Amino acid sequence: MTDITAPDGWENLDGRLHRELTFADFSEAFAFMTRVALAAEKADHHPDWSNSWNTVVIDLVSHDADGLTERDIALAEAVNRLVAT
Amino acid sequence: MTDITAPDGWENLDGRLHRELTFADFSEAFAFMTRVALAAEKADHHPDWSNSWNTVVIDLVSHDADGLTERDIALAEAVNRLVAT
Amino acid sequence: MTDITAPDGWENLDGRLHRELTFADFSEAFAFMTRVALAAEKADHHPDWSNSWNTVVIDLVSHDADGLTERDIALAEAVNRLVAT
Amino acid sequence: MTDITAPDGWENLDGRLHRELTFADFSEAFAFMTRVALAAEKADHHPDWSNSWNTVVIDLVSHDADGLTERDIALAEAVNRLVAT
Repeated sequence: MTDITAPDGWENLDGRLHRELTFADFSEAFAFMTRVALAAEKADHHPDWSNSWNTVVIDLVSHDADGLTERDIALAEAVNRLVAT
Repeated sequence: MTDITAPDGWENLDGRLHRELTFADFSEAFAFMTRVALAAEKADHHPDWSNSWNTVVIDLVSHDADGLTERDIALAEAVNRLVAT
Repeated sequence: MTDITAPDGWENLDGRLHRELTFADFSEAFAFMTRVALAAEKADHHPDWSNSWNTVVIDLVSHDADGLTERDIALAEAVNRLVAT
Repeated sequence: MTDITAPDGWENLDGRLHRELTFADFSEAFAFMTRVALAAEKADHHPDWSNSWNTVVIDLVSHDADGLTERDIALAEAVNRLVAT
């Protein structure tokens, strides 16, 4: 899927969907991560992600497919819905 | 502290500060609980609370004092700040 | 399902599967709750539960069926697997 | 503190305390992260960390001191206590 279109807020970076988010503080950032964790576990598709206090950086790729798949698009869109609420 | 004034949104119920909150869904409710957990652990003062899908019910009391103390007021106010964001 | 058999560690209490768990402290209890939250969200079936510092009390019922269903058994067994690890 | 001794399980990597942990699955890894989050918020000192399914990589540094301080040692030791339980 080399022609995949990144959802709003995401960029296609080195074959991964990449998004960086900033929150008010650690509490808000980690609560957001908890919501992403719930969505990821439900989808059985998990992010590569990092956190430093109020920032969360998410990279999505389908390791088993060695590239982007519909599962990455779906999780990126799920993350976007969480950001919007 | 029989004359304690409950913070906004809380009622003094059977010697406890009591508040019921409703969220959009389980994910939002549990993310809120995670923030309360962080605040409670930081304060070393923890709630008696329950959750059923999108609802969270919180009761605050100082078990060691067998009643309400300033620690309950402080945690109630911390919860209120989380509700406001 | 009036003849449902409660999984190990659970009792059939007032038409609900009921289990009480005790942990070392709040941190361990809330981490366990986070794992149950992930399992519940994945199963799209959520507990009625409460926490007070190191204790977690879980009640399972299928509200839409007004009683116990296979979904409650499955979530009870998922909780048991988490307790075992 | 250039002569800081890294606690057991940690290495001094590029001026940071660094530890990599592997768990059974995402659920176990994220529950561990939740415990670290509680400890970090309580200490008001937060990790730079990343997660990919069952792995958690933690780097500790005191950004305000531009190097390692006792706060990093304390958080590393708190993480070690969580690993041991």
